[in-house]
Amino acid sequence: MITTGFPTVGPSLAQVGEQAVIDAIVAASPSPINGDDAAVLTPSTPNSRVVAATDMLVEGRHFRADVTTPESVGRKAVIQNFADIEAMGARPIAALLAIGAPPTTPLSVVEGLARGVGAATAAYSTELVGGDVTQSHQLVISVAAIGSLGGNREPLTMAAARPGQRVVAHGTIGYSAAGFALLDAGVDIPEALELLARAHQVPQLTPGRGVVARAAGATAMTDNSDGLIHDLSRLAKRSGVGIDLAALAIAPDDLLRQAGELLGVDPWQWVLAGGEDHTLLGTCDGSAPVGFRSIGTVTRAPGVRIDGEAPTYTYGWESFG
Amino acid sequence: MITTGFPTVGPSLAQVGEQAVIDAIVAASPSPINGDDAAVLTPSTPNSRVVAATDMLVEGRHFRADVTTPESVGRKAVIQNFADIEAMGARPIAALLAIGAPPTTPLSVVEGLARGVGAATAAYSTELVGGDVTQSHQLVISVAAIGSLGGNREPLTMAAARPGQRVVAHGTIGYSAAGFALLDAGVDIPEALELLARAHQVPQLTPGRGVVARAAGATAMTDNSDGLIHDLSRLAKRSGVGIDLAALAIAPDDLLRQAGELLGVDPWQWVLAGGEDHTLLGTCDGSAPVGFRSIGTVTRAPGVRIDGEAPTYTYGWESFG
Repeated sequence: MITTGFPTVGPSLAQVGEQAVIDAIVAASPSPINGDDAAVLTPSTPNSRVVAATDMLVEGRHFRADVTTPESVGRKAVIQNFADIEAMGARPIAALLAIGAPPTTPLSVVEGLARGVGAATAAYSTELVGGDVTQSHQLVISVAAIGSLGGNREPLTMAAARPGQRVVAHGTIGYSAAGFALLDAGVDIPEALELLARAHQVPQLTPGRGVVARAAGATAMTDNSDGLIHDLSRLAKRSGVGIDLAALAIAPDDLLRQAGELLGVDPWQWVLAGGEDHTLLGTCDGSAPVGFRSIGTVTRAPGVRIDGEAPTYTYGWESFG
Repeated sequence: MITTGFPTVGPSLAQVGEQAVIDAIVAASPSPINGDDAAVLTPSTPNSRVVAATDMLVEGRHFRADVTTPESVGRKAVIQNFADIEAMGARPIAALLAIGAPPTTPLSVVEGLARGVGAATAAYSTELVGGDVTQSHQLVISVAAIGSLGGNREPLTMAAARPGQRVVAHGTIGYSAAGFALLDAGVDIPEALELLARAHQVPQLTPGRGVVARAAGATAMTDNSDGLIHDLSRLAKRSGVGIDLAALAIAPDDLLRQAGELLGVDPWQWVLAGGEDHTLLGTCDGSAPVGFRSIGTVTRAPGVRIDGEAPTYTYGWESFG
């Protein structure tokens, strides 16, 4: 069973007041260093560099109360920010959470968000160290992630792919889009396909893969947030190279094909244009780092191709479309 | 003349598209390290600790298009976050900016915000190093600030005020609230009082005062964001102490009294309950650090008093009221 839906009853934020809202967040996602004007993080590695990223999630735009849960949204908000930290080859060390919410929002919605943030930060051995709550018309969640980059090796940028390198991926591609399509269709989701719905609600990533890839000699990295072709095209363009993906390596698996049949959708669409998997996508010399698989090669010719051909689906996410 | 109002014409975000919006932000507030999945900050001080804070500003709640400008909102969003970093005795080193905006928003509004962010970060010798843009019903701006705390001395927390210490302040108190009252009243603002309106639009702080205070031996610090009595009460409670403010040291000055007469308002209300000045408020042994003035003393008896009496105005900001 996939759990969906936001609580709609119970005491509201306006009824309990700002301090109770803050107390509930801190109780659901505790940290000894939260609660002052700003959080002070003690470095674990001497002379490490600081890495920072932020993402804003808006109700109705990035998540829908009918197809997910507050806890899933909280987890996802952290994971997609931490994926950006990992995509630099760095280790997440803390998260900040700003929430804007209508005063009628049930406190249990915010508690669920905070529980999700707490669970996701704990999975990365980090904490929610600070934040802000405020009133807005729409539920808006902004997470900022802080990471640490140890050692002298370069971070994994989008500009460092080199012709002849292997293109590698860690995690599923297309699952989040397929899961959203299933949830959005309102069909009874077969048990075998629940994994896809869960992947939409909360991307499944193994913490630490970015650090592993950097240590293993990867040079460029990004994550599959806006769509595989879109994100790899951006990386290729920044690096002044092209990418040739191996169709066999990224072809829809059984789950995606079953979901495609159920909904009458070509599953390649989810793989190539889906996004939101936050799967790490990188380039490296030699063999793929532990946990990564080869999905293609870096070419001199610009653009992203699949077995030498132009991809069928290329569009990515457009925020103001 | 005080400039107010947001642009309402010109190409919209939907018309130009997400990439053009991002390009406009980066052009208005450039940084060589912006543009990848996350920003990598090189430490200036070996083994310094990382300090982080975030604040979300919502149109109609934290700013109004009729009494301010996009550039002022951008400046203010950075300054209030940097004040939180300074209130730990730390130095701001970078800012992240997430913007949610309706697709009909003129691009020039976002450009103005980004120009303001660029101006404020530059005043602190820092940069806008990353961010996110997305669609929302209401204009929402979330800034995260990253700071650096050098040396082994403790940060300036709210829990470190000690009886017998001096209470000190850097910056004006009540100016922002008085300025808002003038702008909100829609009166012709006399030239002599324009400083107040400007203080509401953009708090005037001297960068680096938090670091100076920590070096000079201050122990506790916060900033006047929700109201003087509210913020000092929180600091006193955390420290398990009380505070006795000297009425003479915080009494409304000529400007505040003139504004009070013009609007028929007791200016003490702005001083005691106004907030949003983001003035640094600290405690220290010995004389006040350079740039700070004495406004009271730390007492053993709990609570905040003025010349030994309970304050007339005590309420602070309530986000869900």
